[in-house]
Amino acid sequence: MTYEGQQLLTRLDDDGTLTVEIVPQSWEEPSGSQILVRVEAAPINPSDLGLLFASADTAGADYSPGKVVAKMPEAATRAMQARHGIAMPAGNECAGTVVAAGEAPAAQALLGKRVACVPGTAYATYALADAAMAMPLAEGVTAEQGASSFVNPMTALGFVETMRKEGFTGLVHAAAASNLGQMLVRICAEDGVPLVNIVRSEAQVKLLRDLGAEHVLDMTAPGFDAALTDAIHATGAMLGFDPIGGGTLAGQILAAMERSASRGAAFSRYGSSVPKKVYIYGALDTGPTILNRAFGLTWDLGGWLLTPFMQKAGSEVVGRMRARVMKDLTTTFASHYKARVGLEEMLSKEAVGAYNARRTGEKYLVVP
Amino acid sequence: MTYEGQQLLTRLDDDGTLTVEIVPQSWEEPSGSQILVRVEAAPINPSDLGLLFASADTAGADYSPGKVVAKMPEAATRAMQARHGIAMPAGNECAGTVVAAGEAPAAQALLGKRVACVPGTAYATYALADAAMAMPLAEGVTAEQGASSFVNPMTALGFVETMRKEGFTGLVHAAAASNLGQMLVRICAEDGVPLVNIVRSEAQVKLLRDLGAEHVLDMTAPGFDAALTDAIHATGAMLGFDPIGGGTLAGQILAAMERSASRGAAFSRYGSSVPKKVYIYGALDTGPTILNRAFGLTWDLGGWLLTPFMQKAGSEVVGRMRARVMKDLTTTFASHYKARVGLEEMLSKEAVGAYNARRTGEKYLVVP
Repeated sequence: MTYEGQQLLTRLDDDGTLTVEIVPQSWEEPSGSQILVRVEAAPINPSDLGLLFASADTAGADYSPGKVVAKMPEAATRAMQARHGIAMPAGNECAGTVVAAGEAPAAQALLGKRVACVPGTAYATYALADAAMAMPLAEGVTAEQGASSFVNPMTALGFVETMRKEGFTGLVHAAAASNLGQMLVRICAEDGVPLVNIVRSEAQVKLLRDLGAEHVLDMTAPGFDAALTDAIHATGAMLGFDPIGGGTLAGQILAAMERSASRGAAFSRYGSSVPKKVYIYGALDTGPTILNRAFGLTWDLGGWLLTPFMQKAGSEVVGRMRARVMKDLTTTFASHYKARVGLEEMLSKEAVGAYNARRTGEKYLVVP
Repeated sequence: MTYEGQQLLTRLDDDGTLTVEIVPQSWEEPSGSQILVRVEAAPINPSDLGLLFASADTAGADYSPGKVVAKMPEAATRAMQARHGIAMPAGNECAGTVVAAGEAPAAQALLGKRVACVPGTAYATYALADAAMAMPLAEGVTAEQGASSFVNPMTALGFVETMRKEGFTGLVHAAAASNLGQMLVRICAEDGVPLVNIVRSEAQVKLLRDLGAEHVLDMTAPGFDAALTDAIHATGAMLGFDPIGGGTLAGQILAAMERSASRGAAFSRYGSSVPKKVYIYGALDTGPTILNRAFGLTWDLGGWLLTPFMQKAGSEVVGRMRARVMKDLTTTFASHYKARVGLEEMLSKEAVGAYNARRTGEKYLVVP
C-alpha cells in the first residue's frame, strides 16, 4: 500500500533564491530493516535551521500558505554550491508511531510501537527510518516527550564523554540556558562534573540557579571576564563548548582559562602550559570568530559535531548514552517548547520569525 | 675565578615602563654538569622579541647608549603582571666557546670546544648552560654558523614530526620566506613532504622558487584564495603553520582546505569531515585572529610551541632531530642575517627599529 501525506522540501537555486515548501508526498511500504513512522512530533533545532533557511533573509521573504521564498546572500549561495537546485527534506529527529515495517525481525518488532528516530526527513507526515536507529518509547511516554531524544541529549552527553576522553575535569558552557544547556546542568550534577554556565541575561541566571547550577555568569554584566576567571579557577574547567561561534566569547573563555592557569605562577612569555580548549558546536552568531590571543601558545579551538563524535566513540559508548537518555527521558533529558505548529503553519511568517531568531527558550515543535 | 662582562636585562614596571639595558655582570665558575660559554654569536629571533620588547612602543622610546626606555600599552602591562619589576635576561640561543666547565665528565668533555646552546640568557658576554643541552660544533663550523642551530631548525623539523604524528600528509606554511621557511622548503624536499608556501611579495615568491619550492603563493596577489585552494587540492596539505597569528590568514587557510575537501562531494550542511588544522606558532601580527568560519565543523586551530612539542615527542625523537641539524647545519639549516651588532649596538634606535619590525629576511645577529 502507499501512504499519502506531505513533506517539507528546501531548495536553493544558483541565483540565490531559497524556496521552502510543503508538497504532497507518498511513501511506499518499507522493506528489510526499514520502518515507516507516522510523525507525531519533531523539534526545530538550530542544527535544522542551517539546512532549512541557512542565512537567507527570512524577514524580507515572500510568505504564502505552506511556502516561503527568500533571498540567500551571495557568499552563502556560492558556499552552498553543492545543494543548488536540489529539493532537500529536513528535520533531523522526531517521535511517532510505526505504521509499517520491513520483513526484518528488528523492524517487525517495532510495528505499532511509538518510537523516537533520526530520519533527517522529519518535517513530513511520514518518515522512513532504520529499525536499528529507532528507540521504542517507554509505556506512557508521549511523542512530544520523545521528539527531542537524540540531538540535544546525545550532544550534552557527548560533551561529558569528550571531556573525559581528552583528560579534562570540568566544563564551561556558553548559551547555557538552552534546552541543551539545562540538560547539561542536570547531567553534570548527576555525574559530579564541575560546570561553568555562561548565559545572556539575569532571567537566565535565575533559570539555571533554580535548576541547582552553582556557577552561572551573565556575559552582559559588568565584571564578566573577572567572574569567569574566578569560576574557572574554582572548578578547574579547561574545556569549553560554545554554540554561538561568532564574536569574541570563545577567545574570552580561553583568556579566562589562561588567567586562571597563570595565577601565582612565574612569568612565561609563552603563557601557561596547561591545556585549554574550546569547541564551537553551532553558529547562533554566523559572524566572524574574533580571538584576542591573550592566552599564550597552549590552546586549541575546534569544531565539534555529533556524528563524527559518535563514530569515534564507537557503538558501545553510543549504546550506553542512548540507554541513559531513554531511561531519564522525562527528567534529565526533558525538553521545553514555546509553541507547537502544524506542517503548513511552520512556514508562516510569524513562526519562522520566532524560531529562526534562535533565541534561547523559544524552541518550536512541529506536530504534523 | 670570576668572569666579568655584560648582560642584557629587560624589566617591565607596573606603570608600564619597559627598561632594556646592558649592565655589568659577573659569572662564577660553573659546577656539576654546567658549562660557561663565551658568547660569540646569538640571533634575535621573533621568539626573543616577545620578551625583549613585547608590544612596547619602541618607535617613541628614549635611547641612550646601551639603554632603551619604552612605554608598554596598558592592556599588555596588565597581562604581563607576573614580570613586573623583575629584570630578566634574554636571548634563547647562541654559539660560543666553552671557557669553563663543572666537574661532571660531560661538562669537562666540552672544555675549550665551540658549542651551540640554548641558555635563554644569550645576550651577554658569557652564558651558563647545561652540558646535556649543548651541542659541539663540527670542525670548521663558525659560531655564526652555529648560532641559530636550535630554535628555527628544531621548529621546522617539529612541523614535519607533528604532521606525521597527527596523520597529515602535507603542509601549508605562512610567512614562508623566513629563515625558518627556507629551512622547511629544504627539509620537505629532502623528505618528500608536499609543501604549500604562502609569502607576501613577488620577490619572496622568486626567493623560494629559486630554492626549488613548487607551490609558492603571494597572499597579496589577486586570486590568492582560489590559488591556495588549488595548491591544497594538488598537495592534500591539510595541516597549516602560521607565525602571523593576527588577521584573517589562518581562517583563509582553513576555508581553502574546506573548499578542496568538498570539491565534487555532495552537499553537507556541516562541511566536509576531512580533518583540517592550522597551528599558530608566532605573533608577527599581535592583532586579533579573525575567523570567517566558512569551513564547516571539522577543523582545529591551536597554538604550537617548541618546548611542549619536544617534551611530548620524547628524547629519542629530539635526539634524532638534533643530530640531523648538526649534520646539515651549513646546508639545510643555514641561516642568513641582515646585520651583525654588538651588545650595546643592539639597543640603538636604528637596530631596534630594524629587527623589531619583524620583517622577513631582516634578522639580526648579536656578536658580543
